[in-house]
Amino acid sequence: MTAAPSVSYSITVRLELPARPTAVSELTTVIERGGGLVTALDVTASGADRVRVDVTCAARDVGHANTLVDEMRGVPGVEIGKVSDRTFLAHLGGKLTIESKVPIRNRDDLSLVYTPGVARICRAIADDPSDARRLTIKRNTVAVVTDGSAVLGLGNLGPLAALPVMEGKAALFKRFAGIDAFPICLDTQDTDEIVAAVKAIAPVFAGINLEDISAPRCFEIERRLRAELDIPVFHDDQHGTAIVTLAALTNALRVVRKALPDVRIVMSGAGAAGTAILTLLLHAGARDVVVCDVAGVVAGDRPDVLAAPDSALAGVAARTNPRGVSGTLREALVGADVFIGVSAPGILTGDDIATMASDAIVFAMANPDPEVDPVDAAQHAAVVATGRSDFANQINNVLAFPGVFRGLLDAQSTKITEAVLLAAATALAGVVADDELNATYIVPSVFHPDVTKVVAAAVHQAAGPAPVQAHPHSSSLPAAEAGPTFGRT
Amino acid sequence: MTAAPSVSYSITVRLELPARPTAVSELTTVIERGGGLVTALDVTASGADRVRVDVTCAARDVGHANTLVDEMRGVPGVEIGKVSDRTFLAHLGGKLTIESKVPIRNRDDLSLVYTPGVARICRAIADDPSDARRLTIKRNTVAVVTDGSAVLGLGNLGPLAALPVMEGKAALFKRFAGIDAFPICLDTQDTDEIVAAVKAIAPVFAGINLEDISAPRCFEIERRLRAELDIPVFHDDQHGTAIVTLAALTNALRVVRKALPDVRIVMSGAGAAGTAILTLLLHAGARDVVVCDVAGVVAGDRPDVLAAPDSALAGVAARTNPRGVSGTLREALVGADVFIGVSAPGILTGDDIATMASDAIVFAMANPDPEVDPVDAAQHAAVVATGRSDFANQINNVLAFPGVFRGLLDAQSTKITEAVLLAAATALAGVVADDELNATYIVPSVFHPDVTKVVAAAVHQAAGPAPVQAHPHSSSLPAAEAGPTFGRT
Repeated sequence: MTAAPSVSYSITVRLELPARPTAVSELTTVIERGGGLVTALDVTASGADRVRVDVTCAARDVGHANTLVDEMRGVPGVEIGKVSDRTFLAHLGGKLTIESKVPIRNRDDLSLVYTPGVARICRAIADDPSDARRLTIKRNTVAVVTDGSAVLGLGNLGPLAALPVMEGKAALFKRFAGIDAFPICLDTQDTDEIVAAVKAIAPVFAGINLEDISAPRCFEIERRLRAELDIPVFHDDQHGTAIVTLAALTNALRVVRKALPDVRIVMSGAGAAGTAILTLLLHAGARDVVVCDVAGVVAGDRPDVLAAPDSALAGVAARTNPRGVSGTLREALVGADVFIGVSAPGILTGDDIATMASDAIVFAMANPDPEVDPVDAAQHAAVVATGRSDFANQINNVLAFPGVFRGLLDAQSTKITEAVLLAAATALAGVVADDELNATYIVPSVFHPDVTKVVAAAVHQAAGPAPVQAHPHSSSLPAAEAGPTFGRT
Repeated sequence: MTAAPSVSYSITVRLELPARPTAVSELTTVIERGGGLVTALDVTASGADRVRVDVTCAARDVGHANTLVDEMRGVPGVEIGKVSDRTFLAHLGGKLTIESKVPIRNRDDLSLVYTPGVARICRAIADDPSDARRLTIKRNTVAVVTDGSAVLGLGNLGPLAALPVMEGKAALFKRFAGIDAFPICLDTQDTDEIVAAVKAIAPVFAGINLEDISAPRCFEIERRLRAELDIPVFHDDQHGTAIVTLAALTNALRVVRKALPDVRIVMSGAGAAGTAILTLLLHAGARDVVVCDVAGVVAGDRPDVLAAPDSALAGVAARTNPRGVSGTLREALVGADVFIGVSAPGILTGDDIATMASDAIVFAMANPDPEVDPVDAAQHAAVVATGRSDFANQINNVLAFPGVFRGLLDAQSTKITEAVLLAAATALAGVVADDELNATYIVPSVFHPDVTKVVAAAVHQAAGPAPVQAHPHSSSLPAAEAGPTFGRT
């Protein structure tokens, strides 16, 4: 696998060239010969014998970008100026803005949206707290909460370094579901303190999205918050991944014409994502799942499992491995119909995949590098999926969390259940029509226009209808139609 | 004081009238005779013999609005339809929206602002935490924090009912200072828990604005947060009020040609605002201040003060009352040059003001009803100010907090000092030029275009220059000029 040039490593170079006819083409030629991809080129100034050019090109990584700049330097007469980095530019000043929806043009506007007018709204909510879902941002606002302990695949970077991810997540919430999401990066990695802080800030929010919190703490945090809060708590690394994985598996099984209760599934990874995928698979009807971690097959008689009978791992052992398999991942894989990896890069080869049953399904979702090279895996498996955007069948949480929260918020839901997750997965799988389905299209694009609304509708229904007083989440209602009857306070 | 009609109590009535020539004027006549103020009238539909009209009018209060509707009902042939409330309409769905500043149009955009590109930004911040002020929303983001224990003048309504005020505050932060502010309404009124929660969420923010937290808890919360956080902590009910009060007093003294160190000042109210005003007055050079509360003059020999030597009240006693005055507020007021009230409505009369020194200054800031009727006070005082928007000289915190935070954020300040507050007050006073200054114009309008920038510049200077790596807070930098040099990670 040689990485292709990516906009993640895209640079804009300002340079000056002699004004000879071939200068620009000489420049683009050295970039393309060097393996870069020119995505934009502007002549920003021109003189009698020189032109100034801004050229933007994608590289494979930082070293490759520096190499490309060196090669541009070799064009006769070129003078390299400022080199800037598109990814850093896109992040300057952060990715979110908070805007007022109400105009504040004069004193009358002030009186309406601030004191003294706002006092009437406060009193109305004090009298009937459910009015907060009508008269404040609560109805459409989600907290994206992290402690920075497991940022992407980068590890424990802490809350500040996690903020760019949380901002990006909030941007996706708005883009794909119209939800106002705000990043909460907690300056503590103590379970009790995290639970206390999230409970403390909960009044403003209609839902909590936990993100990038390491296992096993994330399980207790989620369990306690679900028990103590009256709004749904969703850990995207667990449940978002589980929904998309089940949806993809549902469609992969449609491709190979096998049924979930009949297949043998081997999983690699018993962390946050693995545990949640397992739970949802079992809820959906899977019966033969074998889970492996670094020590091999998770089984009740393994010493580390015996030693910790209340651990998450013991819980996994109790719910899996009906045939009493033991040994390594590689051994467990022989004859399996499905492999699901949420673990580590390069732990399997194409030869291992060849030992699986016919029409095997391989989901190698370790990021950025999968458990097995997907090109090698495809030699022996009928369907291959990864977490990468540069292969077919990307298992991407963006397919799930926007619609899940849209549905939960529209239903004014107070909780989230396995039934909701299953409904979301089933709806997501259904977005791929029979005549679209094939081995390289088991999940829709994240930009497919139906994904959010189909998932949201299914979640809304599974979460139960909104209370009778529900209002649409749009605030652009015609004036004389939308107001409460006067005299309520 | 009869209240004037206010947009805070504004209704829109949809009704149908017979299509006779005088019908509309009959309608507006009954509204105006009834003391209402017609602010808009639209004929929204018309038939052969009927017209449909939406009429918007301001009333004095809810009862008055209902009376106006009853009187409209008396117009011959009228049929009243939906009656809606402009204040509630303005709040439907809440007052804030969170938007993405970066476009997410396709997979390349996703790769840039979310995974995998965002990982490079996370690593950069992990390597150098000061980069968070450059590459995330932190630089321009403030938390508006409350526990709902002292919401406006309404009392302890709790966090949910406080949210409309915090949203309004956030809207003002954006409108007047371009600051992204987010409401944090805490579901606890325990001092330790509040401190822990604010510390936990601090990484995302460049400043904390405490709001509507009752005294004396607010003092300890602020003190501990200031000690433990590396971002400025400002309690607007204290320090915002103090800044605007000192600015107004500075200009009132310019009007009457007296000097702060020479005047006798009597204050009513020793709560959050009173204590902060006192501290800033003393810092600015005031020497003779007598503070009163419900029990009269606060003095070191008062039994309740003696009984609590470590209390905020004992601190007030120790710093005030150099002439050893005792007795009631009314008694203390005799011969005073300045009265500053942040206490309770109607505790003084015009006759009390008459006992003050010549060219007296009266700031009666209890909300919504001042300590003394400002019309009565003006019979005997040279300058009168209140907290109300329907009299001259409104002491309004909106004059201070936007510019204070703009300056603190621009300076990347880690703390806030009395010198900063004093600089803000001096700058605010200076916005009123000598040739504008008079007894009814001692503070500028909140919509005066210079207020925020003048206050911000003074605060920025007083808080010290930003670190050398500082960048302008605009994110609309030209692409090829603004980026970091490639290869930084």
